[in-house]
Amino acid sequence: MHLLIFYWSKLRTFAPNIIKSKKKNKFFYYLFKNKCSKYCTSKTGSMAKEIRNREDNYSEWYNNLVIKADLAENSAVRGCMVIKPYGYAIWEKMQADLDRRFKETGHVNAYFPLFIPKSFLSREAEHVEGFAKECAVVTHHRLMADPGGKGLVVDPSARLEEELIVRPTSETIIWNTYRNWIKSYRDLPILCNQWANVVRWEMRTRLFLRTAEFLWQEGHTAHATAQEAMAETRKMVEVYASFAKEVMALPVWIGPKTATERFAGAVETLCIEALMQDGKALQAGTSHFLGQNFARAFDVQFANSEGKLEYVWATSWGVSTRLMGALVMAHSDNNGLVLPPKLAPVQVVLVPIYKGEEERSSICAHLANIGTRLQALGITVKLDDRDNVRSGFKFSEWELKGVPVRIAVGPRDLANGTIEVARRDTLEKQIVPLGGLEDLVQKLMHDIQNNIYDKALDFRNKNTFEINSYDEFRERIEEGGFFLCHWDGTPETEARIKEETKATIRLIPEREDPRPGNCMYTGKPSAQRVVFARAY
Amino acid sequence: MHLLIFYWSKLRTFAPNIIKSKKKNKFFYYLFKNKCSKYCTSKTGSMAKEIRNREDNYSEWYNNLVIKADLAENSAVRGCMVIKPYGYAIWEKMQADLDRRFKETGHVNAYFPLFIPKSFLSREAEHVEGFAKECAVVTHHRLMADPGGKGLVVDPSARLEEELIVRPTSETIIWNTYRNWIKSYRDLPILCNQWANVVRWEMRTRLFLRTAEFLWQEGHTAHATAQEAMAETRKMVEVYASFAKEVMALPVWIGPKTATERFAGAVETLCIEALMQDGKALQAGTSHFLGQNFARAFDVQFANSEGKLEYVWATSWGVSTRLMGALVMAHSDNNGLVLPPKLAPVQVVLVPIYKGEEERSSICAHLANIGTRLQALGITVKLDDRDNVRSGFKFSEWELKGVPVRIAVGPRDLANGTIEVARRDTLEKQIVPLGGLEDLVQKLMHDIQNNIYDKALDFRNKNTFEINSYDEFRERIEEGGFFLCHWDGTPETEARIKEETKATIRLIPEREDPRPGNCMYTGKPSAQRVVFARAY
Repeated sequence: MHLLIFYWSKLRTFAPNIIKSKKKNKFFYYLFKNKCSKYCTSKTGSMAKEIRNREDNYSEWYNNLVIKADLAENSAVRGCMVIKPYGYAIWEKMQADLDRRFKETGHVNAYFPLFIPKSFLSREAEHVEGFAKECAVVTHHRLMADPGGKGLVVDPSARLEEELIVRPTSETIIWNTYRNWIKSYRDLPILCNQWANVVRWEMRTRLFLRTAEFLWQEGHTAHATAQEAMAETRKMVEVYASFAKEVMALPVWIGPKTATERFAGAVETLCIEALMQDGKALQAGTSHFLGQNFARAFDVQFANSEGKLEYVWATSWGVSTRLMGALVMAHSDNNGLVLPPKLAPVQVVLVPIYKGEEERSSICAHLANIGTRLQALGITVKLDDRDNVRSGFKFSEWELKGVPVRIAVGPRDLANGTIEVARRDTLEKQIVPLGGLEDLVQKLMHDIQNNIYDKALDFRNKNTFEINSYDEFRERIEEGGFFLCHWDGTPETEARIKEETKATIRLIPEREDPRPGNCMYTGKPSAQRVVFARAY
Repeated sequence: MHLLIFYWSKLRTFAPNIIKSKKKNKFFYYLFKNKCSKYCTSKTGSMAKEIRNREDNYSEWYNNLVIKADLAENSAVRGCMVIKPYGYAIWEKMQADLDRRFKETGHVNAYFPLFIPKSFLSREAEHVEGFAKECAVVTHHRLMADPGGKGLVVDPSARLEEELIVRPTSETIIWNTYRNWIKSYRDLPILCNQWANVVRWEMRTRLFLRTAEFLWQEGHTAHATAQEAMAETRKMVEVYASFAKEVMALPVWIGPKTATERFAGAVETLCIEALMQDGKALQAGTSHFLGQNFARAFDVQFANSEGKLEYVWATSWGVSTRLMGALVMAHSDNNGLVLPPKLAPVQVVLVPIYKGEEERSSICAHLANIGTRLQALGITVKLDDRDNVRSGFKFSEWELKGVPVRIAVGPRDLANGTIEVARRDTLEKQIVPLGGLEDLVQKLMHDIQNNIYDKALDFRNKNTFEINSYDEFRERIEEGGFFLCHWDGTPETEARIKEETKATIRLIPEREDPRPGNCMYTGKPSAQRVVFARAY
């Protein structure tokens, strides 16, 4: 009984959500089973302790998770992160899937310079407002030994004639290049993408969500007609939405931004917006119809089929390592990451339960065989045969890292021909015969992927509200969520609401039957409800 | 006969190598066949005209090829290139294959910051000499509107406390990060790689071979013992050599550099060196044993199994977009690129020969069917169904772009159930029954890959010379090639030979029975011959 009380106190401190969720009995069984089979180690406790509770402090919970799960960390350079191997492996999977989708829609990859001449930024009047403020400016091209003898100093004689900006986005350098690629309508469309790093000198940074340097892809396309460019803009935001849904298990809204929230230099910005578990919105991808703005700024014209010169129509679209932040915040819990199988660097972890070297070697050999069977299905498997940590520590660690399925085998399982299978999303465990291994694991990959999506969708639906009164809006925006409200369509009202509530219009949802109403703020007519939220 | 003379004069001007190679008869047949089937267009001539002859001016030939084959071009930013989609597609194939090899040898990818604090560069005494000279220095983080009203100026109030250097290589920032990752021998080895862009402010740049910004991968590993780190250094240079041979069809020598030519901060540098068609050597990859130099500079220690603190042992290794230059220079000819099938973005191009729309549509449908059959084998196929250029133009263009196999079908082929198959490496053509398509194309992929390698190997063997007299060396180095010569092992002699002949020691070849001799320059004893060459 003392033991029970001890565990109960630990439970209240570190996992109140389990208590709330009325899984007490199950949890105690788990603890006892753990104890009997030596799952529990002091290290398990200490690992859980280091992650702040989601409900207590969402922001710290997020930072803890990113760091403890080995996704990323801050570097010695202000605002720049180190993406660690486990985090980068997830990003690589995102990249591979997106890259395939881009190629299937006719795009090719290319690479444009890291640096942009300062004068390029001021060519497009609105673009310069958005991007020429906080950026990394290269002014010199040489260091020299400090004449005073202390390390290195900038060589004053190596000043650049024109400063170079580390690209915050590449429209300007790319459209300057396209000028030479495009002569006639036969050269169009150009459908290029690049995978690159970009730098925006953000003052307040957070791992993945807002960093000075981040990784992204930026598509830049050139078209003969506005219609074709607008169709491309739409196509790519839909590629992003499908990717978010099918791969990240992330439900998103699609729609245009208001004029205020548009990309600097765009005629129209379409975006996808997702709801995080703290009720804040996160913009997960954008696709811009740039009109002829950049073609005019960089004098890019083509001869149409009648031989007349016209300016080229442009789009650009991008997603970044910010998606990593969205992935963590949308699905994870107080035990750690919850990764959709399609993005998990390790899909199944195999953990041996043993006493002594003899049991260890026979069980590990058995698990290696199970691993081979799963690898033959294309499943990524990790056999955790470390002998310096206990299995309970391993369980916690792989839960923290979000591995979708854990298979444990102890001496009794070995004798009975069974395996213990645990799924990360529901934390459910079952003991099953080894014979059905392949079918079970494949089904689990599928079920977990879908369940994570359904859970996120359910969360979003429960946290999307139609609100008509501004008073009610001001009160309820504090709790978070998507708010469907009427707005009079003016930037002035949008600005006032933002100032008073910190909420912005995330997008104008596209509905088959938009219903008119009256602006919750001014009472003026509104064509349809828009989505308000506080956002990352 | 007038026509013959006309073609002959064209031939002498644009393709003297064909005349030299005694393929006159074949060529005239080709021209007539072309004429009969309307292959020849004025555009064909103009395309060939734009590529300088390899024998006349190798350097211009190379630049022409890179630009005309759409691999890359210079950008508006001095020394920075734009890698165009066709060039980037080749680089992507290189990346994919290398990345697979890195992962198979236990490495994982990660990402470290673009910027390095200035003070980091001076921590390792030799490293700073090599890398702190010509680099891009970020001094400010904001632009502002010019008070004088003309565009943008650097905001003087946004000066950074410490300047940041755009990474020329990442040893310093990575070892500063590893300090926090490594506590005990259990944390070792760390086997990280990153795919990234780097910047070295080169004064004279050439597309792919030497650019201010280039793309590369850099592996950075940390080990508990010198022995293990040295084994890693060796393993990775062998990965590079296998990749060069098996994928790039590039024979390379493997061996250590002399102390003079080592990476700044390395204890030992192993490299691969290839011979280009102009007789100059090109360093295609390096792998460095860094000893404990960076661990000492950044205070990275680990507790060994007895609990004692030791400094960590390091390696780093890299290849870059320079490999693209090596690929072009090693295999191409006066008709354009010659790509090994394993790196060709298009492996088989299908060209219809037709008169009128009816023939065009039936032949294109037939070719599309052929394309489907080849795609089922995993072969990348392009059907060139453009109706605004003639087939002769298409032939030249795909030859220029190095597509390994061309399949042409005309009305007679359609009637007879045949195809005309041409291979890019030998320029041979044959008319074969359609039935054997799959076997033939698969065999060709294999044969062409091997033939390109054999040809390059043969070239290298014919241009590798054992020379004993310095006078002879000075004379023959002008013709190019690898020169196996005795050297007394001193940096002084090495420097004098370099000054007098522009030749450097490319590597010290590893031989089972190194034979001693006397230095060709000083006559002093030499343990074995080393490889001298002029180099890129």
